[in-house]
Amino acid sequence: MNKINPEEAAGLLRKYDNFLIATHENPDGDALGSSFAMLEYLLLAGKKAELLLPEAIPEKYRDFSPGACRNYASGLDWANYDFIIYLDTPIQKRAALSELDFANIPLPGLNIDHHPDNMNYAKWNLVMPEAAAAAEIIFMIFKAGAGAKITPNIAGLLLLGIIMDTGCFRFDNTSPKIMRRAAELLELGADYHHIISEMFFSVPLTQIEFQAELVSHHLKRACGGRLAWFYVPPELIKKYNVNMRNTEGLIETLRAVQDTEIVVIMQKHELGFKVSMRSKNPEFSVGSIARKLNGGGHEMAAGGLIRAATLAEAEGILIEHAEGVLNAL
Amino acid sequence: MNKINPEEAAGLLRKYDNFLIATHENPDGDALGSSFAMLEYLLLAGKKAELLLPEAIPEKYRDFSPGACRNYASGLDWANYDFIIYLDTPIQKRAALSELDFANIPLPGLNIDHHPDNMNYAKWNLVMPEAAAAAEIIFMIFKAGAGAKITPNIAGLLLLGIIMDTGCFRFDNTSPKIMRRAAELLELGADYHHIISEMFFSVPLTQIEFQAELVSHHLKRACGGRLAWFYVPPELIKKYNVNMRNTEGLIETLRAVQDTEIVVIMQKHELGFKVSMRSKNPEFSVGSIARKLNGGGHEMAAGGLIRAATLAEAEGILIEHAEGVLNAL
Repeated sequence: MNKINPEEAAGLLRKYDNFLIATHENPDGDALGSSFAMLEYLLLAGKKAELLLPEAIPEKYRDFSPGACRNYASGLDWANYDFIIYLDTPIQKRAALSELDFANIPLPGLNIDHHPDNMNYAKWNLVMPEAAAAAEIIFMIFKAGAGAKITPNIAGLLLLGIIMDTGCFRFDNTSPKIMRRAAELLELGADYHHIISEMFFSVPLTQIEFQAELVSHHLKRACGGRLAWFYVPPELIKKYNVNMRNTEGLIETLRAVQDTEIVVIMQKHELGFKVSMRSKNPEFSVGSIARKLNGGGHEMAAGGLIRAATLAEAEGILIEHAEGVLNAL
Repeated sequence: MNKINPEEAAGLLRKYDNFLIATHENPDGDALGSSFAMLEYLLLAGKKAELLLPEAIPEKYRDFSPGACRNYASGLDWANYDFIIYLDTPIQKRAALSELDFANIPLPGLNIDHHPDNMNYAKWNLVMPEAAAAAEIIFMIFKAGAGAKITPNIAGLLLLGIIMDTGCFRFDNTSPKIMRRAAELLELGADYHHIISEMFFSVPLTQIEFQAELVSHHLKRACGGRLAWFYVPPELIKKYNVNMRNTEGLIETLRAVQDTEIVVIMQKHELGFKVSMRSKNPEFSVGSIARKLNGGGHEMAAGGLIRAATLAEAEGILIEHAEGVLNAL
């Protein structure tokens, strides 16, 4: 359980030879950009490295994949590796290794993360909550010098992580420091046009039509407009054949609405209704609501399950919790 | 017709005493942010200054207005001023002075702009096409020292201009340089959360519902999906009571769609159909289409009028022009 700095992390990358890279389930842009960048960098440094992904890479990110990724399902032989790197993963069991016996992984490991609730579970831990993205920390490690050059492609993968974890410089984690690091990555040759085009200007038309129908027929508000939510009927998901693992577009639509403070996506679940919540304001913690629902997450982004027989009942419970948070001040 | 640099422009601000500030009609975020920043700065430097606006400030920007703005309609007495500053205005007659006898304005003037087609029409001209926003050039002038401090409020107004002219760092004018300048403005105390919240997370619900209805019922595509457009029926504008001067949200919705290259907003006009066009790719010039329609603008953003009796006829003409541009390569 050693806490280390980026220079020491660079030393570990230089020291070991056969790397396994893991990141969290349902990987987002930072998890994938960071993992792809680490994989590319280690291979370029002449090491052996493999990236273990828990599931197929979401279509949106496939174009950025370096190819040398292996799926969880294909099994693992620990004898092939001498070191494991966890990226952007606050809790070890959220890593792609979740169904493996992770408590007994026979490899020394390095945990690189920016989540404030990271459990420091590895032999070496580089956890920097002040970083906007895991990719920012990895950039610091690479700059410290770990055996390879930061190529334009690696710079682009790191910038991808930063762009997605800052909402393209719209979220509150946008700082002068992250802007300067983004400037450096551009100077290292990151293909900005390509990243932006793939991330923001390539939404399937069915996804946009799906969102439009949700806005027209399933957008609800309460608490004087400060709470807004979509209930997403299963038949709508089927109609547009959309992947509900990627709900960021839906969240963004609700977040854009004037006066909203807490926004929620609700979906039917066998035990009730699943809620995915975001706060627009640090004063209103959706994390506290999630904890009451036995869910988890952070103060600004959290999720849980409302046990209720009907939608109306679930909505009533959601409104009650939201009122509690919104009226606490 | 002197071309000058930011230091020389700073000298002019120090030299004169009674300023009139003008910007272009239908002012956008850069025009307004730049103008408000210049007004605040000159007043802080102990000068007299007035901002002439051609029309009411759009609601979205009202919260940023310093108050000391005067409406065009209230008339002007040139004797009150000894200097005029044009901001973000490539052609003098596009300034808020359009109906005044601008050829005979009895004041020395400074033209600060980043449009490559700027006509260099003033006595002094500071035109930098490499700047992402007029606000960026003004920041350079203020940094050169023109008699006042850059307060957090002034930094925020300059950052507002930069954010709106770069699409919050999504457009191709996003450079390492503009990111570093944005970082500096943050360090000078710009209230980033407030700017982002007002610009992107405060859209009236009616506007979002209006966009959803357009997507569901009025989105059309041609050229294999590379051309996409909304025809906006007048009754829909009435139904949602939206202001069609601010069509950026509509443009963004079309721009987001996968595979689109040219996106267009069409509206009924007494002589036919008005088109507002954007290109996602410098290779496909909507400026060239606009010129064929006797319209104007730039290669990436332009507008014109299609003279046609029916919507179907106008759409046919639009498709023909778009095909010409898209198939030229």
